[in-house]
Amino acid sequence: MNKVITVSREFGSGGRELARRLAEKLGYAYYDKEIIDDIVAHTDYSEKYVEDIMENRTYRFYPIKIGATFSMDNDYAIKQMQDIYGAQATVIKQMAERSNCVIVGRCADYILKDNPDIFLFRIFVHAAMESKLARCLKHATKTENVSEKEMKKRIIKVDKGRANYYNDYTLQTWGEKEYYDMCVNSTNINIEEMAGHLSHLFM
Amino acid sequence: MNKVITVSREFGSGGRELARRLAEKLGYAYYDKEIIDDIVAHTDYSEKYVEDIMENRTYRFYPIKIGATFSMDNDYAIKQMQDIYGAQATVIKQMAERSNCVIVGRCADYILKDNPDIFLFRIFVHAAMESKLARCLKHATKTENVSEKEMKKRIIKVDKGRANYYNDYTLQTWGEKEYYDMCVNSTNINIEEMAGHLSHLFM
Repeated sequence: MNKVITVSREFGSGGRELARRLAEKLGYAYYDKEIIDDIVAHTDYSEKYVEDIMENRTYRFYPIKIGATFSMDNDYAIKQMQDIYGAQATVIKQMAERSNCVIVGRCADYILKDNPDIFLFRIFVHAAMESKLARCLKHATKTENVSEKEMKKRIIKVDKGRANYYNDYTLQTWGEKEYYDMCVNSTNINIEEMAGHLSHLFM
Repeated sequence: MNKVITVSREFGSGGRELARRLAEKLGYAYYDKEIIDDIVAHTDYSEKYVEDIMENRTYRFYPIKIGATFSMDNDYAIKQMQDIYGAQATVIKQMAERSNCVIVGRCADYILKDNPDIFLFRIFVHAAMESKLARCLKHATKTENVSEKEMKKRIIKVDKGRANYYNDYTLQTWGEKEYYDMCVNSTNINIEEMAGHLSHLFM
């Protein structure tokens, strides 16, 4: 039975690093950006378009789960979004079937949750705003000049996009602790150490 | 620097067992009911009264933190509650200063949160209702005859009392993930195994 760890994360929480280090320590496959590459390879959509849809940067429709009559344009756009979500679900299920792995974001926790053939462990990583801000600014200053205020806006916006995408497709609430096996607050922790400790859960 | 693990928990989540096993595995002191014993030893209140106050079974006032004019009776009762909270805070701080320890409930996470002399790790244990119900019924049937419906009501009532007590005194929200370092969903886990894994966080 494959072990699959899904890591959902607030922007700037270090969740991606935690996921990567967990995968390294356990020798598991690691899927993050690879999910988008796979979707692009199996559909006609561009990488940019798939990314935009998955981060909810382009459209904010009526939730897909609510039946309604849409104009032609809306229908077409929604069809595309559903196409992408379908491709995403297929890709994630294949990854989980292939080997032990760590999957970052992309509703993988929800997509895999009723699969009896895998051992699923769903982690959500979050942090206090000042901690996320500090981490983001540290990474950003290498390549761009962004103020603290702008970065805070970006953090809120990205997380809003992730929450909208997740909530629309899953009938669950992004970040609500009941939907995860463990929520890790990264505000006061060393990510590498935490990854080492958590890896024991899967040995 | 003493390591102090606080374990807050939903009723029936197995949080107390997790706390006890963590303490055992780490060789830490374990404080649960002992907190009440200590308060009783240092005040004039009975064990029953202290327990009732701390589980919010007797009164539900205006929040202590909101200033207001009360009748004499209310004033007196609030004075008693504040007395007990004060004693609780003193006892918990002494426990944390004494040695490495695991403390169950009683707002210990909040009481200790700004203490620079300890390493504090705040855990919240929660579970799906059906899981809590199964655990409670398993324990209850040994001594009492209680229906599933009654037990569900009891679980909701106990947790409401804990939340009220915590929220009134701490200006935080009981069970909100941002106030804890880790939230553990015990629905699908073996408590003993999880305690073993988590103990690595403190070694």
